[in-house]
Amino acid sequence: MRIDRTALADLACGAAFLGSGGGGDPYYARLLAEAELARHGAIGLVALEDLADDALVVPCGWIGAPTVSVEKLPSGRETVAGLRRMERILDRRIDAVMPVEIGGGNGLAPLTAAAQLGVPMVDADGMGRAFPESQMAIFNIRGLSACPSVLTDAGGSLVVVESVDNLAHERIARGVSVAMGGIAHMAEYPLSGRQAREHAIGGSVSAAIAIGAAVRRARGGGGDPFAALFDALRRSGLYARAGVLFDGKIVDLERETRNGFSVGRVAIEGFGEDGGRMLLEFQNENLVARRDGQVRAMVPDLITVMDRETADSITTERLKYGQRVKVVGAAAPPMLREARALDFVGPAAFGFAEGYVPIEALNGWDAGR
Amino acid sequence: MRIDRTALADLACGAAFLGSGGGGDPYYARLLAEAELARHGAIGLVALEDLADDALVVPCGWIGAPTVSVEKLPSGRETVAGLRRMERILDRRIDAVMPVEIGGGNGLAPLTAAAQLGVPMVDADGMGRAFPESQMAIFNIRGLSACPSVLTDAGGSLVVVESVDNLAHERIARGVSVAMGGIAHMAEYPLSGRQAREHAIGGSVSAAIAIGAAVRRARGGGGDPFAALFDALRRSGLYARAGVLFDGKIVDLERETRNGFSVGRVAIEGFGEDGGRMLLEFQNENLVARRDGQVRAMVPDLITVMDRETADSITTERLKYGQRVKVVGAAAPPMLREARALDFVGPAAFGFAEGYVPIEALNGWDAGR
Repeated sequence: MRIDRTALADLACGAAFLGSGGGGDPYYARLLAEAELARHGAIGLVALEDLADDALVVPCGWIGAPTVSVEKLPSGRETVAGLRRMERILDRRIDAVMPVEIGGGNGLAPLTAAAQLGVPMVDADGMGRAFPESQMAIFNIRGLSACPSVLTDAGGSLVVVESVDNLAHERIARGVSVAMGGIAHMAEYPLSGRQAREHAIGGSVSAAIAIGAAVRRARGGGGDPFAALFDALRRSGLYARAGVLFDGKIVDLERETRNGFSVGRVAIEGFGEDGGRMLLEFQNENLVARRDGQVRAMVPDLITVMDRETADSITTERLKYGQRVKVVGAAAPPMLREARALDFVGPAAFGFAEGYVPIEALNGWDAGR
Repeated sequence: MRIDRTALADLACGAAFLGSGGGGDPYYARLLAEAELARHGAIGLVALEDLADDALVVPCGWIGAPTVSVEKLPSGRETVAGLRRMERILDRRIDAVMPVEIGGGNGLAPLTAAAQLGVPMVDADGMGRAFPESQMAIFNIRGLSACPSVLTDAGGSLVVVESVDNLAHERIARGVSVAMGGIAHMAEYPLSGRQAREHAIGGSVSAAIAIGAAVRRARGGGGDPFAALFDALRRSGLYARAGVLFDGKIVDLERETRNGFSVGRVAIEGFGEDGGRMLLEFQNENLVARRDGQVRAMVPDLITVMDRETADSITTERLKYGQRVKVVGAAAPPMLREARALDFVGPAAFGFAEGYVPIEALNGWDAGR
C-alpha cells in the first residue's frame, strides 16, 4: 500500500481522533507531507510481517507541548537530520521509519523523512494512540531501550542522548525539548525488524487511514460521521468498543504550559435541563473523563473531544470556550491493557488515585456494541 | 611541572579565591583528585607554549548550580566518560585536558580525567576565574564553537550536543544539567594546541597554585595571609591589582536555585559605629559589590568573600548568616577587559544597568598598589 494525497488526508483525520486530544494538531505535519508527496510521489506503507528480521526501523515524532507546536513551526529539515544522525551512530542505513505514536500530528510526522530518505513507513506505532511521555511507549513497557535517541530543532541544533534508563531518557529529552523552545523532533527506540514485529502495535496506521476514509465518506454521502467512526474503529481490530460519552458545550477551560507539557482541565455542560457536566483532565492528552463526578473513561482508553456537527477531532491545544462538542471514548488496544502496560500508562502513572476500569465496564457497553 | 599532593592543596586554595564565589567548592574535586594521585602519582602540568599545534586539548568542568554540587556528589567516572566519548566523536586521542574555568572546584575538575587518561592538564583555562554560563568562556568570545560537547552524570547518562551556535548550546546544556539533577560534567570547546595557545588564558593554573602556596606559607609562618594573597596575585601577571573592599559580618542572605543557577544577594555590615554596608549580588559567582549604594566592583573583576581570620574563600553556596568576612576584589585578566569580552562578561551581560568601570578606578587604587 502507498500513501497518496487522499490517504494522507484520511490519515490526518484518523490520527487526530486516535490522539485522544494529543500528539499535536496534524495540520502542519500534513502540509509538510503534502509537499513531499508533490516532490516524491506516494510514500510506501509496509506491514510488520514484511520487515526483514534484521531491518533497522526507527520510530520518530515530536516531543513537547502541543500548545507550542501551534506557534513554533517546523523547518521541515529536523526529521531527516535526526534520522541521518541515527544512521551515522548505528553505522547503517535505516530501512523504515515508524510513528512513535499514531495519535495526532505524530502519526504523520515520519512521512517527510520517509519521502526524503526513500524508505517506507511501517504500518504500526509505539503507542496505539498518543501519550505525553517517551517511556509510555510499548517499547519501554516491553523492556527495550529508547537510546540512542537524537533530538533536533528548527534552528539546526542536534542532541544525542544515551541515558542510563528510559525514565532518565524522558527527563533529559524533555529538558532538551524545553531548551529547544518547547518542541523538538526526536528519533528514538531504534528497533530491528524482529523487535518491531514482536512489540509494535501493528496496523495502527492503516486503522487511522480507514477511520479517516469512513468519516470522509459519511460526510460526503450525508451519513452520520460518528456512526461511521464507531464502525471503522470496531473493524480495525485494535479499538474494539467506542461510543459517545457526553454531548454538550465547553463552559470552562484551564490550560497552561508546564514543564514542557500542556496541562489543564476542561468542563463541558450537557444540553437540556438535566444535561449534567463532564470534566476532562489532560496532560497533552485527555486522561480521565468524569460525568457528574463519576469516572466514565480513563487512560489508556481513548478520550477525544470532537465537533458535534463535523466530527472533527479537537486537540487539547485547540479547545476553546463555547465549542459544541461530543466527547467520544474508545477502548485502547489490548497490548495497552495488560497489567505491565497499565503500570506505565494506567491512571496511577498519571497520579490518579482510582484504579483502571475498562471503558466498556464504566459505561455498561456490551462486547457487541 | 607536576601536581602532587601539596600543589593540589594549593591549587584548591587558589582556585577557590579565583572562583569569585563560584565554580563550586573545591572540596570534592580535591578529594577525587587526591585518590587519583594516590593511584597514579603526580599529574603533569603543561604550558601552552609546549603544546603541539595540532594537539587535541579538551576543556572540561561542571555545569549547574553549586548549591546542588554540595548535596549531589560525583561518581568520579563522569569526567573520563565524557572525554572518552569526545575522543570517539573526533576519532582521535586527547593530548591534554584543561579547566574550562580556573575558579572553584572546576579548576581541579580535569585532574581526575588527566590521571585516568594519562595526559597532562594545561596551565591555562577558558575564563581566568569562574563565570556562570558556557558562552562566557574566552573561546566563545573569540568565535570558537563549544561543540561538539558531551555532558555526563553520576548515574551514567551521556548527552552529546551539537548546537547551531554557542548561545543555543548554553541553553540546551543548562536544560540537560537540570534534567540530570541540577549538575552535570561537561567537556566542550575542543581545541587544537594552536587555538589553545592563541585564545586560552595562560598561566592561570600555576597562578592559582602560587596563590595557594603563598597563603599556606603565610599561615604557617604567622604572617598575614591577605598580604600574601595580594602579593601572589600581583606577581601572577594576570591579576594586577587587588585589595580588601569591605570588612564585616553577614547580616542578610537570599539564595535560591533558579533555572539551574544559584541566584541571590548577601548583605554585610561593617564593624564599628559607622561601618557601612556592602551588598553583593550573585549568579553562582559574585557579580557586583555595592558599598552604601556605590558600586565598588563589577564583573568581570573578581569579588571573593573570605573568612576574615583564616583567609579561606567562601563560595556563594557556603555563605551563612553571621560569618565574619573580608570582601576581596581583584582586577580581571586583561583579555576579559577587552571591549568584545565585556559584551559577554561585563555588567550588561548580567542585566546590570551600570557600564563597566575597572575596580582600580572605582577604588582609587593606583597602578603600583
